[in-house]
Amino acid sequence: MLSEIRKDPLSNDWVIIASERGGRPTDLKTETTKEEKGKFCPFCDSSEVSEPVKPHSICAATFAPDGKWMTRILPNKYPALMPEPILAQREMDDLYHCLTGVGGHEILVDSPKHDETLATMSKEQIEAIITNYQCRYSYWRKDPRITYLSVFKNHGKVAGASLHHPHSQLVATPLIPPRLTTELNESKEYFKLNNECLMCKILKTELENKHRLIFENNSVAAFCSFAPRFPFESLIVPKRHSASLEEITKEEISDLAEAMSVIFKKLDKLLNDPPFNYLIHVAPLRTPGLLYYHWHIEVILRLSQPAGFEWGSGVYINSVPPEDAALELNKVKIR
Amino acid sequence: MLSEIRKDPLSNDWVIIASERGGRPTDLKTETTKEEKGKFCPFCDSSEVSEPVKPHSICAATFAPDGKWMTRILPNKYPALMPEPILAQREMDDLYHCLTGVGGHEILVDSPKHDETLATMSKEQIEAIITNYQCRYSYWRKDPRITYLSVFKNHGKVAGASLHHPHSQLVATPLIPPRLTTELNESKEYFKLNNECLMCKILKTELENKHRLIFENNSVAAFCSFAPRFPFESLIVPKRHSASLEEITKEEISDLAEAMSVIFKKLDKLLNDPPFNYLIHVAPLRTPGLLYYHWHIEVILRLSQPAGFEWGSGVYINSVPPEDAALELNKVKIR
Repeated sequence: MLSEIRKDPLSNDWVIIASERGGRPTDLKTETTKEEKGKFCPFCDSSEVSEPVKPHSICAATFAPDGKWMTRILPNKYPALMPEPILAQREMDDLYHCLTGVGGHEILVDSPKHDETLATMSKEQIEAIITNYQCRYSYWRKDPRITYLSVFKNHGKVAGASLHHPHSQLVATPLIPPRLTTELNESKEYFKLNNECLMCKILKTELENKHRLIFENNSVAAFCSFAPRFPFESLIVPKRHSASLEEITKEEISDLAEAMSVIFKKLDKLLNDPPFNYLIHVAPLRTPGLLYYHWHIEVILRLSQPAGFEWGSGVYINSVPPEDAALELNKVKIR
Repeated sequence: MLSEIRKDPLSNDWVIIASERGGRPTDLKTETTKEEKGKFCPFCDSSEVSEPVKPHSICAATFAPDGKWMTRILPNKYPALMPEPILAQREMDDLYHCLTGVGGHEILVDSPKHDETLATMSKEQIEAIITNYQCRYSYWRKDPRITYLSVFKNHGKVAGASLHHPHSQLVATPLIPPRLTTELNESKEYFKLNNECLMCKILKTELENKHRLIFENNSVAAFCSFAPRFPFESLIVPKRHSASLEEITKEEISDLAEAMSVIFKKLDKLLNDPPFNYLIHVAPLRTPGLLYYHWHIEVILRLSQPAGFEWGSGVYINSVPPEDAALELNKVKIR
């Protein structure tokens, strides 16, 4: 197949799909780096959170019916941003400007079990994780200085996870991240022209042509992205149009947990526990009810290394066409 | 120091400078991964290029006075884009579009010596590399389908270099990369408002306050970026306002080679041959004489791993303030 240059309608990413550069998609399979044994794990502590999340916490964890914690929240020991300082703009000179680093950075411990992954967890555990995310959105929405909450997961050392114990993170910022701004602009523009939500349209297209579809149930669909920066890059999208994960119902949480469980089980089996990141994209906290924005989860596998070309140009070279990635994933049988 | 949120005026990058997360800048020093001995190197071949660069080549290499090659050009064995296909837009459906992958992808061998790096090379060798770049701009400018030429170098495995022998690459694309589009827009906007080139203004600011300056000679200055995505991220900038490297003079080539030699010698000594990428930013090929754009080289070290937050938000967390990075570099004595 000749190379193709594709553009993603939501993120505006330009991607070169150069399938001749790679072999089969599964050649990317990496050797799992085993964890050092006997290392102290700060997330394994079975006692309750000793120090409450500062400045205060409305929802420190999710709990099982027997009262044991299923997920909990810890302050990040090395926070990128902190709740204390007052938000202020500082002029360095007439060229450069900066903001004080007000915000938040928390660790969301995703399970009491040190060795679990999304591929091995129960569906109930994944539901607890999603409920925990939902709580943090409600919590941070109350801080008037915060305009956006990035909730994400790094899995595997290559993907930036310094600790093995399953955990997610959140960074609360006084600015709307540029990737979100682009998505918001594109969605707004599309809505103005077509009187339809762009993600609803993408969803309809993917469900119709099925070339990239990898999962579907009552309320959730997942598909490999049309213009993926990384091999196997996928979107997990709620079918009901909604601007934020905060508005998710109990049934939808259950369906989303099923989607995540199936997708990560398949990726695990196909590619041997690959390193990955996912990031939740929602509407900004100060404008929650956006008609034109549709929340979703971006999943990227870290099996390739962006280099000078990608960092300098913002264009990505990907050797795995998403149609091939979907085909491989759909062949995997789990249980 | 509290965190700061900074915005780069040229690239629009948002960066969180969180110095509490890291230790001293030099703690980032990595252990060099030694190359496997006895591995065949396709760039070491001392014969002349057996297969000419397709479709034809106006400048296959630079040569020393004794007639031996100093740099040469090879077709990339696994090209991301190829010169053959005809540029065409393809409609996938009413949502997605793509272009055929027309373009070019070449390997620029930077030296006949397998073990040289920018830190160990002679100044004459670096001059030959720059002259070779200049040739490729002139060459690709003649292809009407190509609008931009990304010339870059990956050094070290972590930075995406699969072969040890010193080399650069170029990717010729029928589109202007998004990072360039942003720089072009910001530069144009600034020029309209201030009747001055944005990079000339940045240069003046950096030369005046000296907080981030790391090198200066007659025609070139270099400084750590105000809002760096990566530790030690720097810009190497010609003092004379010019839109493309193609317009560089012999004296300027000599001064640029001196700048690169000094900077990479210092980085090598300070951080033990760190993995890096650099990328040359020039005006698009079809609009060469742009008044408002100023060409430059972006240098990034790959000592940290962008993770879920960075990939999903487009905001970067960096633990090394550029003022500290410049201080460390300015302490290093070479020779």
